[in-house]
Amino acid sequence: MNNKTAYHVAIVGATGAVGQKIMDVLAARKFPIQSLKLLSSERSAGTKVDFNNKQIVVEKATPDSFKDIDIAFFSAGGTVSEALVPEAIKRGAVVIDNTSAYRMNADVPLVVPEVNANDMKHHQGLISNPNCSTTQMVAALKPIDAAFGLKRVVVSTYQAVSGAGSEAVDELIQQTEAFLKDETIETNILPVKGDERHYPIAFNALPQIDIFEENGYTKEEMKMINETKKIMNRPDLQIAATCVRLPFFTSHAESIYIEIEKEGINVKELWDVLEKADGVMLQDDPETQTYPTPISAANKDHVFVGRVRQDLDCQKGFHLWVVSDNLLKGAALNTVQIAESLIKNKWL
Amino acid sequence: MNNKTAYHVAIVGATGAVGQKIMDVLAARKFPIQSLKLLSSERSAGTKVDFNNKQIVVEKATPDSFKDIDIAFFSAGGTVSEALVPEAIKRGAVVIDNTSAYRMNADVPLVVPEVNANDMKHHQGLISNPNCSTTQMVAALKPIDAAFGLKRVVVSTYQAVSGAGSEAVDELIQQTEAFLKDETIETNILPVKGDERHYPIAFNALPQIDIFEENGYTKEEMKMINETKKIMNRPDLQIAATCVRLPFFTSHAESIYIEIEKEGINVKELWDVLEKADGVMLQDDPETQTYPTPISAANKDHVFVGRVRQDLDCQKGFHLWVVSDNLLKGAALNTVQIAESLIKNKWL
Repeated sequence: MNNKTAYHVAIVGATGAVGQKIMDVLAARKFPIQSLKLLSSERSAGTKVDFNNKQIVVEKATPDSFKDIDIAFFSAGGTVSEALVPEAIKRGAVVIDNTSAYRMNADVPLVVPEVNANDMKHHQGLISNPNCSTTQMVAALKPIDAAFGLKRVVVSTYQAVSGAGSEAVDELIQQTEAFLKDETIETNILPVKGDERHYPIAFNALPQIDIFEENGYTKEEMKMINETKKIMNRPDLQIAATCVRLPFFTSHAESIYIEIEKEGINVKELWDVLEKADGVMLQDDPETQTYPTPISAANKDHVFVGRVRQDLDCQKGFHLWVVSDNLLKGAALNTVQIAESLIKNKWL
Repeated sequence: MNNKTAYHVAIVGATGAVGQKIMDVLAARKFPIQSLKLLSSERSAGTKVDFNNKQIVVEKATPDSFKDIDIAFFSAGGTVSEALVPEAIKRGAVVIDNTSAYRMNADVPLVVPEVNANDMKHHQGLISNPNCSTTQMVAALKPIDAAFGLKRVVVSTYQAVSGAGSEAVDELIQQTEAFLKDETIETNILPVKGDERHYPIAFNALPQIDIFEENGYTKEEMKMINETKKIMNRPDLQIAATCVRLPFFTSHAESIYIEIEKEGINVKELWDVLEKADGVMLQDDPETQTYPTPISAANKDHVFVGRVRQDLDCQKGFHLWVVSDNLLKGAALNTVQIAESLIKNKWL
C-alpha cells in the first residue's frame, strides 16, 4: 500500500495493437501517470510514439527497465512475460500481464474488476488479465450467477481477426481485396501463425483459434473453460466452448446457452439483473430489431447483451448474445481497470 | 405410380438463384427429363436460359402451365407457392416445394431423403423441401439418433448471405468494396429485406435471420426447431437454435451441442456412425488441422462434419461443427434428390 497520487508506469509491447490501445485508454481515462516508459523488443526500440501530445522514444525492455516503476503493463507475448515479469516484480513493480503465461498459476489473481476485484487483495506483485473472449463472457454471466446461480454454460464464439494480431488484420484486408479482384488468395497467418496449415479467412469461418490440445479442444476453447472457472471462483461450473474466427475486424460475439439453478425465473428478471450490472449494457428489443453486433460494439467500453430468450424445453435454460470490443474490455480497457481498482482499493 | 423413364419437368422461379442451381443439379446428375418448362413471374418472363446447350424461353407461370407436367419444382417464394401449388397438384403434377409455405402442414411430407424418404410413400402430390440450415443439421444428426438416441440439441449457426437471396449477395459485395475504399456503407437489405432496420453485413455478424416471432426467437430459429422435430419424427426432441448471418457467400456452418441417450459412447464411435452415413463426409483431424469451412464445402454435395468432441462435464454430451453448401444440399440438391427418391421408389 502506498499513498501516491501519480505513478511511474511502463508498457511492455508498446508498439503492438494492444499496447497502443492501452495508451489510448490511459489517456482517455486520465490515468494518474507521473512518468510513462515505453518498452519493446530490440527490433522496435527507437520508435517514437505519441502520448498526450508528447513524443516518447520506445526503449528496449531489459530487467533494469523496471527500476522505480510502480505499474508495468505487459503485452508483448508469453515468452517476453516469462522472461521479464519476474524481473519487474523483483524490482518492486506491480505487473498486470495481458498474456496467458501466468493466468492459471494458483497464486496469480486472474481478474475482471466487476467480477472478482477482491481476488487482488493479497496479490504478490502480479495480476493476470484474462483472455478476451473470457472477459466479456464472465462480465455478462457473473451477475446472473450471483442472482440465480449458474449451473452450466455452452458457448459458441464469433471472433474478430484483431484477436490474432495486426498481421491477421492485414491478411483479412489483403485476401478480401484479392477476392474482389478475382486474384489468387494468399494464406500465411490464420488460423494460427506458425502452424502447419493456413486457410483463407476472407468470406470464410475457421473453427480453430490457437493450436489444438490433446483432448481435441483448441487452446482458446480451454482458456475460456478454465479461466471462466477461475475468475468466477466456480471450479464446479459445467462449461463448454467452441471458438470460431470470422472475417470481421473488431469485437467478439458469443452465442451463450446457460442453465441456472433457481426455478421460475423469466427473461424480464434476467434483463433486470443485466441492466443493473456494472460494465454491462442491455441492447435487447426484438420489436425494434435491437441487438448488439460487432460493428456497433466496436470502440465502446461496455459488454453488450441482447437476444435473451428462455429455452423452449428447459425452464431454467436461457440463450444470450454477448458482444464486446475485444481490444478494449477484452484487453486494454480491462488491463487499465485492474490498475485503477488496485489504486482505488489501496492494494498497489 | 407410373412406369415412365423420362419426365415432363417444370421449374417455378427459374431465374432465381435456387432455380438456376436446380437446373445445374438436374443437368449434372443427368435427371431423366423428357421436357423442361421454365416458369417465373411476369417480370422475368421472356428471359432466355441455357440448359444442356439449348436455350429455353422462360414463361409466365399460370395455373395452366402445369398441364401435362409430371414434376414441378417450386422456388419462387411463399406467395407464389400458395397461389400455384394447388393448381399444379390439381393438374396432376407432383410438386416439390422449396418454400416454407406448406412445410409444417400435417399432410405434407418434409423430406431429406437420407433421413425420412419413407414419409413420401403416401404423399398427396406435394413434398416440401426443408429450410437450408435444417437440412444439413438433420443429415448429420439422424445417424447419431438412430445409433445412440438423440436427447437434446443446442445449435448456433454461421450462415451465408446467399441464403437471403442475390440482393443480399450484392449488398455484401458493395458494402465490402465501400468499406475498403473508406466510402459510406449503404444498408438496404439485411438482416431482413422489407423489415424496419438494416445493419451492415460487411465485416459484421447479425444475430437475426428472418423476422422475430412473439416468443423472441426469429422465424429462422423456429424453423430449425420445428422442422427438425418433424423430419426426424421426434416431436419430443429438446432443441434450441440461435441463427446468425455472417459475411460470407456460400455454405452454412453450425456449432452443434448434442446429448445422446446411450451411455459410454466415445468420439471414435460417433466418427464410425458419421463415416457410414449417407450424404455425410467426416473431415475431422485436429493433428492435421482438418475440419470443414464454408469455402471448402462450397459447390460440394456432402454435409461435412468436423471438430467432434466429447463434452468435458457431460459424458453423453458431444460438440460438432457441421458445414454444407446452403444452395446445394440446403436447397437445389435436396430438392432434386427428393424427385430422384420418388422415382426410385415408384412413388411418383
